[in-house]
Amino acid sequence: MELAIDALISRIDELGNPSCVGLDTCIEYLPEHWQQKCGSFEDAAKYIRDFNFGIIDAISDIVPCVKVQIACYEMYGIEGMRSFCDTINYARSKGLSVIADAKRGDIGSTAKCYSAAYLGRAKLQGKELPAFESDFVTVNAYLGSDGIKPFLEDVGRCNKGIFILVKTSNPASGELQDRRFEDGRTLYEAMGDYVIEWGKPFIGRYDYSAVGAVVGCTHRRQAESLRKRLKGVFFLIPGYGAQGGKAEDIAVCFDEQGRGGIVNSSRAILTAHQGAFKGLDFANAAREAALIMREELSKAIKGRANG
Amino acid sequence: MELAIDALISRIDELGNPSCVGLDTCIEYLPEHWQQKCGSFEDAAKYIRDFNFGIIDAISDIVPCVKVQIACYEMYGIEGMRSFCDTINYARSKGLSVIADAKRGDIGSTAKCYSAAYLGRAKLQGKELPAFESDFVTVNAYLGSDGIKPFLEDVGRCNKGIFILVKTSNPASGELQDRRFEDGRTLYEAMGDYVIEWGKPFIGRYDYSAVGAVVGCTHRRQAESLRKRLKGVFFLIPGYGAQGGKAEDIAVCFDEQGRGGIVNSSRAILTAHQGAFKGLDFANAAREAALIMREELSKAIKGRANG
Repeated sequence: MELAIDALISRIDELGNPSCVGLDTCIEYLPEHWQQKCGSFEDAAKYIRDFNFGIIDAISDIVPCVKVQIACYEMYGIEGMRSFCDTINYARSKGLSVIADAKRGDIGSTAKCYSAAYLGRAKLQGKELPAFESDFVTVNAYLGSDGIKPFLEDVGRCNKGIFILVKTSNPASGELQDRRFEDGRTLYEAMGDYVIEWGKPFIGRYDYSAVGAVVGCTHRRQAESLRKRLKGVFFLIPGYGAQGGKAEDIAVCFDEQGRGGIVNSSRAILTAHQGAFKGLDFANAAREAALIMREELSKAIKGRANG
Repeated sequence: MELAIDALISRIDELGNPSCVGLDTCIEYLPEHWQQKCGSFEDAAKYIRDFNFGIIDAISDIVPCVKVQIACYEMYGIEGMRSFCDTINYARSKGLSVIADAKRGDIGSTAKCYSAAYLGRAKLQGKELPAFESDFVTVNAYLGSDGIKPFLEDVGRCNKGIFILVKTSNPASGELQDRRFEDGRTLYEAMGDYVIEWGKPFIGRYDYSAVGAVVGCTHRRQAESLRKRLKGVFFLIPGYGAQGGKAEDIAVCFDEQGRGGIVNSSRAILTAHQGAFKGLDFANAAREAALIMREELSKAIKGRANG
């Protein structure tokens, strides 16, 4: 069975598109006549799901991957979680790699449950049952390696992948992450070095590990130094577009072959029908925005590879 | 309206019991004849819920608080989440303070959704609807203050509380948390200092803030130094019992008035019917174990107050 990271990279190569559509679907992103119908969790969950299905149908032949931000679904309770579940299952059925953006992390025994929820399976009476099975899950490693171990076991056993928070895209990420330890490394560098270690047993055929890192493109200097430092670590790159990251910020996140990361965009794609492509329906607008993003990234990364 | 932290502390005083029952309910904790019936998520979720209700009924007059570990429910999908939801609602209906142990944390816009899920409410068509409304939620602040701000807003607006991971109870917690920055502070100290700052606007009538810290009792030296450093910060203390924390480790987590924290115990209470109180049904066994824990803590903390 192919490693999830290898499947993702070969699909990126095939489509010439290292981008990821972030299904951080808020009510405000929906067409207005749908928004007006969202008066209960049940309705909100239904229209969010329908919207996601429309986006997935519109982009699955040009985009390799979706990232589903679970917080946007948890806020609508059980019904929201059902919508999350339907969304990841539908995306996978369409051949997309799915990243559950859950940023989970806990002590070992608890991490085992989280990993069962998103990567592995729950065991019941000898059966193994999936809960919210995805290809990748994002993980917070503040607790240290014993909280990561259960995820690593499922990465190996079930051919999955994880992305560990290293240097996040938000403005305040430096408060702790950029702080320097006595040994000269920043917290994000120390975290990155752990990611290298944890990922060593899971290097795939493109020389990238199934254990990747979240590295925002909104902090270019740090992203550039991390790309050099973290050989073999594939980046999930948030912060592009609405959060302020530009094409030139992206370029430094990729290697000389133009590989090494996938760039997420949520708002610019999901709200294209309210902005850049007003007049088109939401799905076609999202497709147009995704095609533009593909061009932008392609140019930026080629610039990098040639420069 | 009373601050959640004040309600918790006054109930601790009233019952003479600074303990918290951790509903980290695994299938293996259930009575054997129930375990055998758990062949699907639906059945697992049903029996876990029935078990939790039994525990809650058995301890709600002697224990002030439950902590519900959401990972144990997420692993059983939508049905598991329904069981989580039923559990927190039932516990609150019985007058218990409820800590959703979710260790959430993300960038600001996403943290806002998480906070709506666990502390605040989701807004739909002018209505405010609760998803998994709890009194407290645990939070991971690796991303920095802009990811904490939405939680703080709901702490103020909805009279809730949060516990931020500072020094966790797991064996490997020191890998990152004990590492020392150039300014002489460890990561857990730097995190603790942020908790003081974030909590300042929310100090209640017992001089403790609604913004607390998770400080494990399995690392006694660090817990002791944190108790001295973090004046006004209430501790959620995991690690007691099955994880190795002892009464003397607990003592250092409390102040001279015998206040300042709540000690979680999960396995020792939930599995009392399989061990210390074999022969009793699970609910009565849990009650006996909870009474013993109350005595142990009471002695340990009095020793501290007198010593």
